[in-house]
Amino acid sequence: MDFEPSDKVKLLQEQLERFMNEYVYPNEAEAIQQIDKCMEADPPLMKEIRGKAKALGLWNLFLPDKEYGAGLTNLEYAPLCEVMGRSGIAPRVFNCNAPDTGNMEILAEFGTPEQKQQWLEPLLEGDTRSCFSMTEPEVSGADPTGLQSRAVLDGDEWVINGHKWYTSGAVGARLAIAMVVTDPKAAPHMRASQIIVPTDAPGFELIRRVSVMGHDTGPGHCEIRYDNCRVPKENLLGPLHGGFVIAQARLGPGRIHHCMRAIGMAERAFEIMCRHANTRVAFGGPIGEKQFVQEWIATSRMEIDQARLLVLYAAWKMDTYGKQVARQEISMIKVVVPNMLMQVCDRVIQCLGSLGMSDDTPVARIWREGRSLRIADGPDEVHKMVVARRELKRFA
Amino acid sequence: MDFEPSDKVKLLQEQLERFMNEYVYPNEAEAIQQIDKCMEADPPLMKEIRGKAKALGLWNLFLPDKEYGAGLTNLEYAPLCEVMGRSGIAPRVFNCNAPDTGNMEILAEFGTPEQKQQWLEPLLEGDTRSCFSMTEPEVSGADPTGLQSRAVLDGDEWVINGHKWYTSGAVGARLAIAMVVTDPKAAPHMRASQIIVPTDAPGFELIRRVSVMGHDTGPGHCEIRYDNCRVPKENLLGPLHGGFVIAQARLGPGRIHHCMRAIGMAERAFEIMCRHANTRVAFGGPIGEKQFVQEWIATSRMEIDQARLLVLYAAWKMDTYGKQVARQEISMIKVVVPNMLMQVCDRVIQCLGSLGMSDDTPVARIWREGRSLRIADGPDEVHKMVVARRELKRFA
Amino acid sequence: MDFEPSDKVKLLQEQLERFMNEYVYPNEAEAIQQIDKCMEADPPLMKEIRGKAKALGLWNLFLPDKEYGAGLTNLEYAPLCEVMGRSGIAPRVFNCNAPDTGNMEILAEFGTPEQKQQWLEPLLEGDTRSCFSMTEPEVSGADPTGLQSRAVLDGDEWVINGHKWYTSGAVGARLAIAMVVTDPKAAPHMRASQIIVPTDAPGFELIRRVSVMGHDTGPGHCEIRYDNCRVPKENLLGPLHGGFVIAQARLGPGRIHHCMRAIGMAERAFEIMCRHANTRVAFGGPIGEKQFVQEWIATSRMEIDQARLLVLYAAWKMDTYGKQVARQEISMIKVVVPNMLMQVCDRVIQCLGSLGMSDDTPVARIWREGRSLRIADGPDEVHKMVVARRELKRFA
Amino acid sequence: MDFEPSDKVKLLQEQLERFMNEYVYPNEAEAIQQIDKCMEADPPLMKEIRGKAKALGLWNLFLPDKEYGAGLTNLEYAPLCEVMGRSGIAPRVFNCNAPDTGNMEILAEFGTPEQKQQWLEPLLEGDTRSCFSMTEPEVSGADPTGLQSRAVLDGDEWVINGHKWYTSGAVGARLAIAMVVTDPKAAPHMRASQIIVPTDAPGFELIRRVSVMGHDTGPGHCEIRYDNCRVPKENLLGPLHGGFVIAQARLGPGRIHHCMRAIGMAERAFEIMCRHANTRVAFGGPIGEKQFVQEWIATSRMEIDQARLLVLYAAWKMDTYGKQVARQEISMIKVVVPNMLMQVCDRVIQCLGSLGMSDDTPVARIWREGRSLRIADGPDEVHKMVVARRELKRFA
Repeated sequence: MDFEPSDKVKLLQEQLERFMNEYVYPNEAEAIQQIDKCMEADPPLMKEIRGKAKALGLWNLFLPDKEYGAGLTNLEYAPLCEVMGRSGIAPRVFNCNAPDTGNMEILAEFGTPEQKQQWLEPLLEGDTRSCFSMTEPEVSGADPTGLQSRAVLDGDEWVINGHKWYTSGAVGARLAIAMVVTDPKAAPHMRASQIIVPTDAPGFELIRRVSVMGHDTGPGHCEIRYDNCRVPKENLLGPLHGGFVIAQARLGPGRIHHCMRAIGMAERAFEIMCRHANTRVAFGGPIGEKQFVQEWIATSRMEIDQARLLVLYAAWKMDTYGKQVARQEISMIKVVVPNMLMQVCDRVIQCLGSLGMSDDTPVARIWREGRSLRIADGPDEVHKMVVARRELKRFA
Repeated sequence: MDFEPSDKVKLLQEQLERFMNEYVYPNEAEAIQQIDKCMEADPPLMKEIRGKAKALGLWNLFLPDKEYGAGLTNLEYAPLCEVMGRSGIAPRVFNCNAPDTGNMEILAEFGTPEQKQQWLEPLLEGDTRSCFSMTEPEVSGADPTGLQSRAVLDGDEWVINGHKWYTSGAVGARLAIAMVVTDPKAAPHMRASQIIVPTDAPGFELIRRVSVMGHDTGPGHCEIRYDNCRVPKENLLGPLHGGFVIAQARLGPGRIHHCMRAIGMAERAFEIMCRHANTRVAFGGPIGEKQFVQEWIATSRMEIDQARLLVLYAAWKMDTYGKQVARQEISMIKVVVPNMLMQVCDRVIQCLGSLGMSDDTPVARIWREGRSLRIADGPDEVHKMVVARRELKRFA
Repeated sequence: MDFEPSDKVKLLQEQLERFMNEYVYPNEAEAIQQIDKCMEADPPLMKEIRGKAKALGLWNLFLPDKEYGAGLTNLEYAPLCEVMGRSGIAPRVFNCNAPDTGNMEILAEFGTPEQKQQWLEPLLEGDTRSCFSMTEPEVSGADPTGLQSRAVLDGDEWVINGHKWYTSGAVGARLAIAMVVTDPKAAPHMRASQIIVPTDAPGFELIRRVSVMGHDTGPGHCEIRYDNCRVPKENLLGPLHGGFVIAQARLGPGRIHHCMRAIGMAERAFEIMCRHANTRVAFGGPIGEKQFVQEWIATSRMEIDQARLLVLYAAWKMDTYGKQVARQEISMIKVVVPNMLMQVCDRVIQCLGSLGMSDDTPVARIWREGRSLRIADGPDEVHKMVVARRELKRFA
Repeated sequence: MDFEPSDKVKLLQEQLERFMNEYVYPNEAEAIQQIDKCMEADPPLMKEIRGKAKALGLWNLFLPDKEYGAGLTNLEYAPLCEVMGRSGIAPRVFNCNAPDTGNMEILAEFGTPEQKQQWLEPLLEGDTRSCFSMTEPEVSGADPTGLQSRAVLDGDEWVINGHKWYTSGAVGARLAIAMVVTDPKAAPHMRASQIIVPTDAPGFELIRRVSVMGHDTGPGHCEIRYDNCRVPKENLLGPLHGGFVIAQARLGPGRIHHCMRAIGMAERAFEIMCRHANTRVAFGGPIGEKQFVQEWIATSRMEIDQARLLVLYAAWKMDTYGKQVARQEISMIKVVVPNMLMQVCDRVIQCLGSLGMSDDTPVARIWREGRSLRIADGPDEVHKMVVARRELKRFA
């Protein structure tokens, strides 16, 4: 239960921080504007910064697979992921951005050699992008057993029909991994499979970018229609009807990554609040001397530090005892961290006043995008329900 | 202390509700898109709906002045204002939108006959728009004594120099009312005057629309530079150095209007939550049967109803005893209602899940725009401070 | 919807306040000590003060029945009840204390002339006390359909067997009104009856005073065993199997009384906080100048005023449209007010520091006794559930 | 940063848990009753259990001094202290109860050999008890520079005059350690000294046990008057005018102990909630299946685990880098843990309903006594203020 980062990790941390200072923070505002305006994931400025990161080897640090990735444990990756979380563009800069990370992980773990060559390697190189097609507008994402999209084998091809949305990053992606029912009569968690769908497959229709929190730009959160969409039989990823197993394999580390990034976001916002409180003057002194502001700063620091320790503990437990044993802690951080992030951001906005409402700082964006973390990958309520049930069992 | 609406008010309420159902809700999404895309306050669809509202006399209901407006008391206007609050476009539809309402109020109260004819009447007709230029980027809006912009008389003209932002609605406005220091050596609250500035005056520079919560479209929240901006001497509004008096006169009713609109917003979001909870199914039943959801609904109902009663009480007190006596209640609703709105919206988003993050419902917009209400017209903290001080005095 | 108190009510309010200042506050601490030490509801000091209150006609103000009581509406009684709530001993001083008030109400409404003469009149005179025997230790009070105690007719007598606790005020009471199952096969809400049980009836066993929040003194919250307890047939109160109807009749006004008293408690604690904040000095000034303290004061004032308005609204609605129509509002205040009280008290304790933990002020007692209000007469959660369901129905 | 307990600690933990199960939990209720009724710290049952604990060597585990105590680090003692925190009588059972622990620590660190022999050794043996006399009723404990009690040297004796309260454990104590001003003209933190005062010294007057949360029994929270109280010159503890240094030395570990005990209290209450939720039935099933209850359980688990990790981190930092470096973390846990405890207890009470209000479980007592932890040793607000200031400095 030793949370101290190793020397290797400390070195990477320093390199990342230096890179953030030199290339990420100074270009962040312009890069985001480019993304918003040209509706691309990687407009020119992003391509340039990504090239530098790749050249320095600050690349694919998320992937625990030693052959394909950096081979770091969750606990090792955690502080690095936190650094990347500090800027909205950084995960993409270092090729560590969702949903590509999750897709690369499952391709590395479940892919055939051919699938790895065809789909994983270009993603690792950063030459393509991917999306994950799971959420459906008609059914509650909180209850994944309601899945409606279907795939049936027709000769050598899967024929997929379904309706998805929140397929994030679909604009410009080369592949989607789609979660579809392949055995409708089986028990709920044994019904689905995951299938690799090239986005140029016939019947893959990108209907629209869903406008989310006022934005329908960049790589998008897309609505997709699979209309008799046909892909080769061998595009099945992992075992037939094993979709939920793969989804679970994807979720554990994914949630830890989301949480570590969210801690980085919170620290970024927190720093902005402190700097503002030190310099903004009202009623005869810097506002940092007012107790209303001190309350925000102190409470935020306490919440962030507690949340970080819980994430490190979850990461350590997952590394030491496996995903199954660490389920309770993973559920817990999935609730704790996004809620902490929203509370911290809310205080920072209030402290910044009208500046906090503007996009002259990254805080307003962190706040409105961060809100999704309490919903995605299972809403708070589902995680609380399972956490409570496990506790109740301990005392049954 | 009778909060029951009169028959006159009930009739207006019904007319407004009918109009909302017929013209506002069905066109709301498209109108907002038009505003966002063409960067105008009144794109074609808005012009059309506004015409209908005006024709029906559902127009300028906010103005207590019997000659120029509807002559309603605050308590009478409150339920009507709530109805308008239910749609982001409705206040503009009925010519009851900030900041024009506040500007019309002070022009009606403090304007000379000439000023009224030149500036107030076109606003009442809905032919022009206006903005209010008070907030400055360099100083805290919470402490208005820090005001830096200045105006000096040079012959028959005011020469204004200053830097403002959050001058909402400046794009396309015909006039700004600017708050500027005219007597820098006077006591803080006796330093400023309000001056009417035509937006085509020399030296009035609209620098940029500040991007707020990801948006820099529509009539904008603008950054303005007054660079030796010259306007005729007679553009002084009200008494010389009486800027704070006018600002206070503006704020009392303005805050009540904001609060009543916010209650309408909360009710709209609340209704969307209930309808979703009745129909969305997860884990074997409509989610409205889950206690997590019931908690949101019950708590929201309690908060909304309490907040509304407090606003009605503040309105009644202001009508009965005047703005000065009702200061405590006005400060209180200014804190209570925007916080209630944010809590209710947060629950609605969580209940709606990914749909709540999208712009397929108005909730996400209410949430991100509503956040400003805890900051504008004095942040929560300033109001809490004055509320506490008045209570402490009662027991001194 | 006029909440203004009538002249009659204002006069009573003044009389009550004068009486509180002259007799209640100065004797409160000693009276409570006497109650705690001698284990009686009415030790000598209480008897003396009660005599004075009765002589002045400040007596039985709660009872809407014009023949037996003051004939005030709920809205009229509300501000008077608030005044009484300010001191833990005041309700008893004015013969307006639970559970006697509820018992008197149902005796007045459902009692036969003989029952009224035998049981109601001595209670109205203040010569006896009574208790209400409903809660059972084995089943959840939240779900009253689980009631287990039974009564069967044996000749001219009811034979009661059952186990109750939280029979408040049983020590020294002359009668209990017991809620018992008389028709076990009927639908849940048609199973029970209410029966008047003299506490000297054979088989009525007062097992112990349950120690509640560290106290087992005074009239007690008692555990009772009904062991073949026999009472005359004519002791049935109201219709046979009509126990739930009577319980409902009792609960509506009872909840409003509890809530109004709780507002009085909150105001008392609030006043103590403000006086302390004005005089206690730390870090170079009165603590009322610190923003941490201002936050407590402002937020408490906002919560109290909102809660009071909601209670007045519920009372007005109940008076105007009846208990059935006002159910939603009564449920709402039952949640809102006790939670508000606890939050306010918590802030007051924090503001008073170690003094707040001590019994040198009434705050610590208000806090620990007030906690029961979130549980008694239906816990928060049951009321939230029904509030949510009614809202959901509106949008079904 | 390794939080894993050593084998030595694990063994002690098991021994403690076994002892708790065998001797503490089964006797807890009766022991507390004895303490409440006979007004002694160690009534017969306590003496008996303490004898057993001492015989087994489960004794003085808190004392890091290897000569006099167990020589455990803060991190080692933390999980043991948590176990002891689970019962209100356990700290005393194992001779690890405040304020004796703090007194023993400073006697071990600052005492002369003679002082150790005379005062420390009997405390370590458990033959006597002690109290700490710091808080004064006239001044805010939050601002220790207001200290008013004084001591002046008169020949070979200190003559002490002052007024203290919240001198916990004074009834039956053999000594008090009094914090008194010895150099009134020095800078605030260099004014005071600590002096050992035998409770039978002339002029040491125990005025009353202050009733705290309804209780004035047991060893008491006493009000003391020092009225020309005379003690030998050599009773000065540590350096002259070094009172604040000693107080600080006392506070660091003291706060960690309080926090670890509070985590034990929270776990105890949590366990009671879960067991109740598993067995209590309402509305057709165990209440643990209701989401309202699941919310309480999940949130409590998340809060407890986060708080514990932060305490372990503070303990590790204090052990590794010293009290000075760990100040920020110690301040943070001092706020986080007591607030967490109150929230958890509040939920447990609500879950238990009327049972939770009664003293049939330990929860009601934990709740009302636990409230003091947000006030003692510096209220929340003082700690938040210093935490905020340190954060602000990092970004200055």
